[in-house]
Amino acid sequence: MIGIVGGVGPYAGLDLMRKVFDNTLSEGDQDHVDALLFSLPSRIVDRTEFLEGREEQNPAEAIHEVLSRLEEAGATVAGIPCNTAHAAPIFELIQEKLDSAGSRIRLLHMIRETVGFIQTALPDLRRIGILSTTGTYRSRIYQDALESAAYKVILPSEEMQEQMIHPAIYDGDYGIKSQSNPVHPQALAFLETGFSYLEQMGAEAVILGCTEISMAFQVPAGRGVIGIDPTLVLARALIYNAFPDKLKPL
Amino acid sequence: MIGIVGGVGPYAGLDLMRKVFDNTLSEGDQDHVDALLFSLPSRIVDRTEFLEGREEQNPAEAIHEVLSRLEEAGATVAGIPCNTAHAAPIFELIQEKLDSAGSRIRLLHMIRETVGFIQTALPDLRRIGILSTTGTYRSRIYQDALESAAYKVILPSEEMQEQMIHPAIYDGDYGIKSQSNPVHPQALAFLETGFSYLEQMGAEAVILGCTEISMAFQVPAGRGVIGIDPTLVLARALIYNAFPDKLKPL
Repeated sequence: MIGIVGGVGPYAGLDLMRKVFDNTLSEGDQDHVDALLFSLPSRIVDRTEFLEGREEQNPAEAIHEVLSRLEEAGATVAGIPCNTAHAAPIFELIQEKLDSAGSRIRLLHMIRETVGFIQTALPDLRRIGILSTTGTYRSRIYQDALESAAYKVILPSEEMQEQMIHPAIYDGDYGIKSQSNPVHPQALAFLETGFSYLEQMGAEAVILGCTEISMAFQVPAGRGVIGIDPTLVLARALIYNAFPDKLKPL
Repeated sequence: MIGIVGGVGPYAGLDLMRKVFDNTLSEGDQDHVDALLFSLPSRIVDRTEFLEGREEQNPAEAIHEVLSRLEEAGATVAGIPCNTAHAAPIFELIQEKLDSAGSRIRLLHMIRETVGFIQTALPDLRRIGILSTTGTYRSRIYQDALESAAYKVILPSEEMQEQMIHPAIYDGDYGIKSQSNPVHPQALAFLETGFSYLEQMGAEAVILGCTEISMAFQVPAGRGVIGIDPTLVLARALIYNAFPDKLKPL
């Protein structure tokens, strides 16, 4: 059974589960895969706040708790639809806690799955851009994974990251986490500028490396650059691990 | 904590959870309500097939199992996003099984909540139309609840129900359960005809009384008739029961 750690953020959990259903071969309700979504946002502190030192508690504690409860409820493979939660200080502690508790749940790694997807599905690409939270940006999770697979990584400048990309997600007035239906035009404008910047710096593909970005931002048609959605990659990896014969061809 | 019985069908579970989040007062991830969605479609047989005598197993058994697991995982109030599952032969058995197991979970009744919503939020209405599966149609769940509240109920003819409304949901080629993204034009055309028929027969509001219908069919703007979405009513009732101070005003 597929388990999803929800609440990071709540809509990202729904988005991952929808992408699991959308990528399942089925002809009616009963063919669909079994999946559990535990959305416990009140207990999981913000990931970037922790990585930046403004929050003491490591969100790994609460994420590990949710994973234990998913496992108790029958999940055998699980995913966390939050890129930032895969930064080493968080993800390694989650994995350690699972290991020391003797957990048998298989926790997929969204970032490694995404790099693996680029290698196998888009083998000609070499220059990859990244749009993400500042937590993901500074912890270098995508950079390190891509560079060790010999990709050239292209990022927004520090200034653009802090003044445009992170606020597009987190700003209390116009950020996607505060206002997502519809997304505020200011958030979209900042993401569009970031995307164009990466494109002009030579990116052949851009990883929409925050679940809020991949939900809110559509890569405009007719652009040469490919948008890569890690939530979609994770959804397909979850199906492949739990029900390999039910994975819909791309 | 809010529990959702998913898998009846899978997308209806997502739709209910999204409507819970959309109707929650929140300024960021951590303000959102805690909720669990167990989507176990493989074990829950079709509700109309059972009510029509073509399936022997009562889906109440599996739905009760899911509710027990939701309760074990911490849910205190729960909803089933499937109108047909509220037909007496199914719902009463679920409730009996919960009672005899000493369950303390509070299971809301989507149909009673919907009739209660019409009474309190739309007190001037008297003539209510219903679009639903044939299981819901024949088991008279909405008719009985509305008539005992002194409403005049308006339904599609038997022929229209069997040849247009039920197939719009279930047909293997064009039904919403087989093809929902996008919905097939044939399904939409049948639902539009059903809606117009109820309108012309004098309905002041139409209950979109199957989760597939309320997901796929938008009441066209500028129509005098009001579309009522029981999934939305259930979402708001779940929040009201679990976190009354977090319910967003309508």
